[in-house]
Amino acid sequence: MSVAPSTSAEPSHLTGPSGPTEVRGLTGIPGLTRVENTDPAVLAARCAELTRPAYPHQEVYGRYCTIHEYVDCPPDEAYAYLRQGHHLEEWTFSLRNFAPTGTAGLWVGDDLLEAQTRIYCRVETNAEARTVDFHCSWDQGEKLWMIYLMRVVPAELVLDRPGSVITWTNCRHPFYDANPRPDLAPRSDRAWVGAYWDLFYAGHTVELANLKAILEHRHLGGLPVSVPPRPAGAATGPAVAQ
Amino acid sequence: MSVAPSTSAEPSHLTGPSGPTEVRGLTGIPGLTRVENTDPAVLAARCAELTRPAYPHQEVYGRYCTIHEYVDCPPDEAYAYLRQGHHLEEWTFSLRNFAPTGTAGLWVGDDLLEAQTRIYCRVETNAEARTVDFHCSWDQGEKLWMIYLMRVVPAELVLDRPGSVITWTNCRHPFYDANPRPDLAPRSDRAWVGAYWDLFYAGHTVELANLKAILEHRHLGGLPVSVPPRPAGAATGPAVAQ
Repeated sequence: MSVAPSTSAEPSHLTGPSGPTEVRGLTGIPGLTRVENTDPAVLAARCAELTRPAYPHQEVYGRYCTIHEYVDCPPDEAYAYLRQGHHLEEWTFSLRNFAPTGTAGLWVGDDLLEAQTRIYCRVETNAEARTVDFHCSWDQGEKLWMIYLMRVVPAELVLDRPGSVITWTNCRHPFYDANPRPDLAPRSDRAWVGAYWDLFYAGHTVELANLKAILEHRHLGGLPVSVPPRPAGAATGPAVAQ
Repeated sequence: MSVAPSTSAEPSHLTGPSGPTEVRGLTGIPGLTRVENTDPAVLAARCAELTRPAYPHQEVYGRYCTIHEYVDCPPDEAYAYLRQGHHLEEWTFSLRNFAPTGTAGLWVGDDLLEAQTRIYCRVETNAEARTVDFHCSWDQGEKLWMIYLMRVVPAELVLDRPGSVITWTNCRHPFYDANPRPDLAPRSDRAWVGAYWDLFYAGHTVELANLKAILEHRHLGGLPVSVPPRPAGAATGPAVAQ
């Protein structure tokens, strides 16, 4: 879907803070920084203040955690791989043994980061935008609040080279800081997933490196990038759920 | 669209580096960090190394620049606003006066950051994923390489509160570092857009604050969040392109 800027062809005549745009609804909105009310030199000074040699961990990764990686694998293949949840068992550090639950679309597996810990997962994808969102939670599948927002972007468009850029964003849901259902923990000394939030930048970087290694090894080696799910049993063939 | 992990119900039995997953295609892929080959304590140590008190600007914003903002405005309204390109004239610092070109979906306006500079823009959106990608370029509209990848995420899902999280990612296309068409510059001393890359974190933060201020002012004030495009002429009503 392509949507154009829908402004009419008539150029406006910038007339300062009381110019046409202000008349049309920006009057009274405090805090706007626009060329009509801010000299570019003032903006430059503000940007210089905001730009620092370095940024504290909490400032960059405290509330949101986004990482990016270039992968030498075509976006359609990378997306096809990422969207299939069983591949989590390949590229994540510790998610394994997914199986369907009684609820359509909801799967449950083990997060081997903590012994006896079950992780529930539903995958929401959009082929056109190439978004892949993993809606997960530990211990229960009623409210999936650990959401891994990923997207495969054609590197041709954004980096002028073949392959994909994969972005991965997590937001610090309040349940990271307070387990809403401690009664569901498999054991009283099991660490809560939120204890790992400050390591998400690092941990996800390791996992995204896994993803890159797998996709590039297979694509550059001429192998199929996606693999079938594990067989349901020794005597049966691969079970494909979709 | 919802896609489930498609792994079968049979639990695998982890058997170390030569276990089932390796047999199924990970053998020979170097550099994988997985629970089968890496003790969690080793991963923890690696994550501790990767996690630092602070990160240099170039490391965080040098190649990719993602910023995030919570906005107290429902995701459908925030998305409807963002996807309409004429609103760029409200929330950006310096994009103004968009008008259609002869090419369907391609618009051209002024980037008042630099005098006499034209910016071409096409907006690609996806209502289901709520992605809004602005494909832009200065000076010419044949190759739109300045791509602003944005997404509106329901805060209810990721932060357990009403409203939206808006993410905004730019990737450092090589043209930022070398103008491929210096002959199209309107004047010989016009600064190139790539000269601003290192200020994108700051500049986009200012613009995302504009976006938040506008959306919250209107939503919380009970006003329509979106506004019609500027009138095409004094005697005509608002022109809506979509």
